[in-house]
Amino acid sequence: MAGCCSVLAAFLFEYDTPRIVLIRSRKVGLMNRAVQLLILAYVIGCHRACFTEVKMEPPPPWVFLWEKGYQEMDSVVSSVTTKAKGVTVTNTSKLGFRIWDVADYVIPAQEENSLFIMTNMIVTTNQTQGHCPETPEETNVCESDAKCVAGSTGTHSNGVQTGKCVPFNGTVKTCEVAGWCPVESDTLVPKPACLKAAENFTLLVKNNIWYPKFNFSKRNILPNITTTYLKSCIYDAVTDPFCPIFRLGKIVEDAGHSFQDMAVEGGIIGIQIRWDCNLDRATSLCLPKYSFRRLDTRDTDHNVSPGYNFRFAKYYSDPAGTEHRTLIKAYGIRFDIIVFGKAGKFDIIPTMINIGSGLALLGVTTVLCDVIVLYCMKKKYYYREKKYKYVEDYEQGIDSEMDR
Amino acid sequence: MAGCCSVLAAFLFEYDTPRIVLIRSRKVGLMNRAVQLLILAYVIGCHRACFTEVKMEPPPPWVFLWEKGYQEMDSVVSSVTTKAKGVTVTNTSKLGFRIWDVADYVIPAQEENSLFIMTNMIVTTNQTQGHCPETPEETNVCESDAKCVAGSTGTHSNGVQTGKCVPFNGTVKTCEVAGWCPVESDTLVPKPACLKAAENFTLLVKNNIWYPKFNFSKRNILPNITTTYLKSCIYDAVTDPFCPIFRLGKIVEDAGHSFQDMAVEGGIIGIQIRWDCNLDRATSLCLPKYSFRRLDTRDTDHNVSPGYNFRFAKYYSDPAGTEHRTLIKAYGIRFDIIVFGKAGKFDIIPTMINIGSGLALLGVTTVLCDVIVLYCMKKKYYYREKKYKYVEDYEQGIDSEMDR
Amino acid sequence: MAGCCSVLAAFLFEYDTPRIVLIRSRKVGLMNRAVQLLILAYVIGCHRACFTEVKMEPPPPWVFLWEKGYQEMDSVVSSVTTKAKGVTVTNTSKLGFRIWDVADYVIPAQEENSLFIMTNMIVTTNQTQGHCPETPEETNVCESDAKCVAGSTGTHSNGVQTGKCVPFNGTVKTCEVAGWCPVESDTLVPKPACLKAAENFTLLVKNNIWYPKFNFSKRNILPNITTTYLKSCIYDAVTDPFCPIFRLGKIVEDAGHSFQDMAVEGGIIGIQIRWDCNLDRATSLCLPKYSFRRLDTRDTDHNVSPGYNFRFAKYYSDPAGTEHRTLIKAYGIRFDIIVFGKAGKFDIIPTMINIGSGLALLGVTTVLCDVIVLYCMKKKYYYREKKYKYVEDYEQGIDSEMDR
Repeated sequence: MAGCCSVLAAFLFEYDTPRIVLIRSRKVGLMNRAVQLLILAYVIGCHRACFTEVKMEPPPPWVFLWEKGYQEMDSVVSSVTTKAKGVTVTNTSKLGFRIWDVADYVIPAQEENSLFIMTNMIVTTNQTQGHCPETPEETNVCESDAKCVAGSTGTHSNGVQTGKCVPFNGTVKTCEVAGWCPVESDTLVPKPACLKAAENFTLLVKNNIWYPKFNFSKRNILPNITTTYLKSCIYDAVTDPFCPIFRLGKIVEDAGHSFQDMAVEGGIIGIQIRWDCNLDRATSLCLPKYSFRRLDTRDTDHNVSPGYNFRFAKYYSDPAGTEHRTLIKAYGIRFDIIVFGKAGKFDIIPTMINIGSGLALLGVTTVLCDVIVLYCMKKKYYYREKKYKYVEDYEQGIDSEMDR
Repeated sequence: MAGCCSVLAAFLFEYDTPRIVLIRSRKVGLMNRAVQLLILAYVIGCHRACFTEVKMEPPPPWVFLWEKGYQEMDSVVSSVTTKAKGVTVTNTSKLGFRIWDVADYVIPAQEENSLFIMTNMIVTTNQTQGHCPETPEETNVCESDAKCVAGSTGTHSNGVQTGKCVPFNGTVKTCEVAGWCPVESDTLVPKPACLKAAENFTLLVKNNIWYPKFNFSKRNILPNITTTYLKSCIYDAVTDPFCPIFRLGKIVEDAGHSFQDMAVEGGIIGIQIRWDCNLDRATSLCLPKYSFRRLDTRDTDHNVSPGYNFRFAKYYSDPAGTEHRTLIKAYGIRFDIIVFGKAGKFDIIPTMINIGSGLALLGVTTVLCDVIVLYCMKKKYYYREKKYKYVEDYEQGIDSEMDR
Repeated sequence: MAGCCSVLAAFLFEYDTPRIVLIRSRKVGLMNRAVQLLILAYVIGCHRACFTEVKMEPPPPWVFLWEKGYQEMDSVVSSVTTKAKGVTVTNTSKLGFRIWDVADYVIPAQEENSLFIMTNMIVTTNQTQGHCPETPEETNVCESDAKCVAGSTGTHSNGVQTGKCVPFNGTVKTCEVAGWCPVESDTLVPKPACLKAAENFTLLVKNNIWYPKFNFSKRNILPNITTTYLKSCIYDAVTDPFCPIFRLGKIVEDAGHSFQDMAVEGGIIGIQIRWDCNLDRATSLCLPKYSFRRLDTRDTDHNVSPGYNFRFAKYYSDPAGTEHRTLIKAYGIRFDIIVFGKAGKFDIIPTMINIGSGLALLGVTTVLCDVIVLYCMKKKYYYREKKYKYVEDYEQGIDSEMDR
């Protein structure tokens, strides 16, 4: 009990602090500060180098350590809706004069974070289930039934082979298939693209973000934007950076590509919306930043299904009840709206962890300077004697004391 | 070689520990503990304040430092499927008596993390490609062909102008367009919504989550839920918090809105599933938490395409082979299933980093107390003398010794 | 001013370093190193145990502390496109001989991160709006009109009850509904699946990833892959781990399930692409890693809508203008392409934080050894005397000095 009391008394009434040797020496003192300066310069230098490498603006040096450490971070949760506008006209021999509106060229009619605009197509009208010759390809061209295996299908087949070899046109014979007839012939992609006027269509992107940890939400239609402005504005990185209405041609151009080239075989464009928010500052400074990037890198070496296309069909039924369909191989640009970003807010825990680490780091200077002072300087024995107190085990101690 | 041995011997057989001044003083001792207590109180206080600000329950104080630090974290990877159920009936002059089932009102039939339920619509039946007058708008109304420019299209056009001015009805003349005729007239949105009974439709959400780092997966249909319960339950935050079947009306209500209001012009509702799991505890405590939020904030100031709608068409072919279509402007509620969360599991590395930082932080107290003891107290010179040992460079040293 | 100068002089020309007791004792020295070794072994051991638990390869021990700490991390931003290929044939009494191609079995035609392949179906042809008896179920079977409530609908209803009880077939009478007639009868799912040949269909997955923080992007079609290889390869975890073309049967098999079983009632398969990149090494080492997992865990206990299916309809118009539709309940496999991963790159800030923490951690050894040396060893009083210098407050000090 008494022991317990004395421990408590010691805990409350005693204070221990390390004993320090204070060396009054210009050389040593200046060296110490120089080492500290070098460490600091190295850290800032490395940090700047990193930022410069990825072509981003480095933060000012005074925030270098804390900026990263004093905030609790959270990743964005996002919801996107899109709406395209525009009509255009085509005049082809197959389809005649035809108007295309939103319901015609947006497929499917709605998606969550993405919008497909058809810019080009190969239409095969009036297909019915039946037997017909394949489109001539290396593996299909035949001279007799011997080359055609009943029931077989290849990777690019339009149907199941019947085993017969039939004339495709006056000169070529191909294997007959059971399938939707006549089969599609997709070797010639229309150029320029059928709906080349899609360049002038507009796209309204509505984006609502949420940082669950901070219960902070914001929209990309900023509160200070007026309805009048919204009705007439078109996004431009310099003049209208917060207008959420984009001209398709401008998006593709900003991504560094030509709309007319891309429209022919299709492709994917990422509309990237970055929401990096420092919630310690005013929320009005938390703004979306748009950028555009082509996502289907076109290597000339790897033209396995280049661009972006897919097939869909419209099914019809004739009065007799037989089904026929119009097969459309749709080429077009898929706009993927990619929302990302991080929000930070002051939080005591990461701050404390960083201060703790920072303080410990300062210890490195002392270690380094000690090494120099105690091992490299002329007066090292003198300083060592002042810093260290040598304690020997008594038994051994007396002997080793004698040895000296 | 001998030098090497002696270094090894010193490394193995010597132990160094800092020398300490132990000040036996009630004043200093109590002050030291008080400073430590203040720092602790400040850290806990700030932390609580942060949590209170975002209206979350703060963790108990004793875990405050470690809770965040001792675990390795991972973000959720999720897969969602949805299934709506319900039928309703409409009786309009245009469409007559008509039953609507899942295949009619869910568009598209399946999406990855989202489900659109059509609640209202403007149907334009029997459109064919042709020439017809535009719906009267500021820019379309004309008196002579002079105002209509052949080939031009506006943002809200339904087709390409032919350059003629034709009567829209008995009193108004508008520019003629080539397009799908007759053009849609979407100025009057049906009110109340056509499919207002969608309020009672149900939505089954199946969600499977995975934390790749811990190879831990779980479903929102919990193992202790019986099939009988699933067949009859409806989600309720209080009575049935783990039932994965939602009544649409209840979802919208929980998000703080009126279903009937929202059904008219449509909107987006986020069904948020939060999976915050502490994998150090029993996995049965890792449970989904549902919340609902309207994602398309309706500002009265920014009613640029308010709500949520899109256009799609059903294409038909008449016996003569001409294509006609039914254009539907679908208003409705898109339910976005947003899954997020973090799992934590004890890991030695972040624990060690945190203990290290914590220890370093304790050093702050010593620094603070030292400042007070050595600079502010009456007996500062006495304490300083005990703590410091002044070492002068000899050459300079002797001189400066003299100066005293 | 003079005071300010002297402070600056002290700051620049003085150097302070803690005074150390160096104990020359084999026992104490060895014990110190042993404690350090134990801490290190414990940290590495725990870390290995964690990795072994989740069946991952532990990193070599020498990187254990730094590996996690020296890098700035970023999460992946991804874009996916898919393309299925294959044709098959069905021969049923209802639909006759019929060929199925991509436009028939992929619904919807394109999605962002996902692809649905229909493998089985229940087709209800030629539905029109009208009155007809419900399919017999517990709640529908009736003997007189008394059991049928006009205007009511149940969870599984195909329409709205008219209140009449009509014969379903020769033996059973059910309540009449207004709806799409005849109603669907989905009690018998075709087995084996209609499109069982989908097992041999192939799926090309194109994936483009981006790490925004490092401005690093890569595709899953690696630069060293030739077009010839791409035209013929099929993914195999051992022989062709980087081929982006998958055989559907192989995917399901790799996920540990049978394709033919799964094809009957449908399901969800996750195609997981992991991009864990260490950007400090060559970018050619940053490679996608594919894995497959079934996401709709089938519990025998919870067969509430097992597998995966949805309903959609194809709408037709007969010459008289009445609409009819073919309702399809599509069972099939949805392939969700889930892309995840983290990239790390050396950054000075986390490195410094970790070094700081690590150094502070070394202090723990000193604390532990001090406790042993000063409280547990025989010569504790001798060592304590050397380490501590006791300073008493003078006033109290003299008194307490007397007390001894």
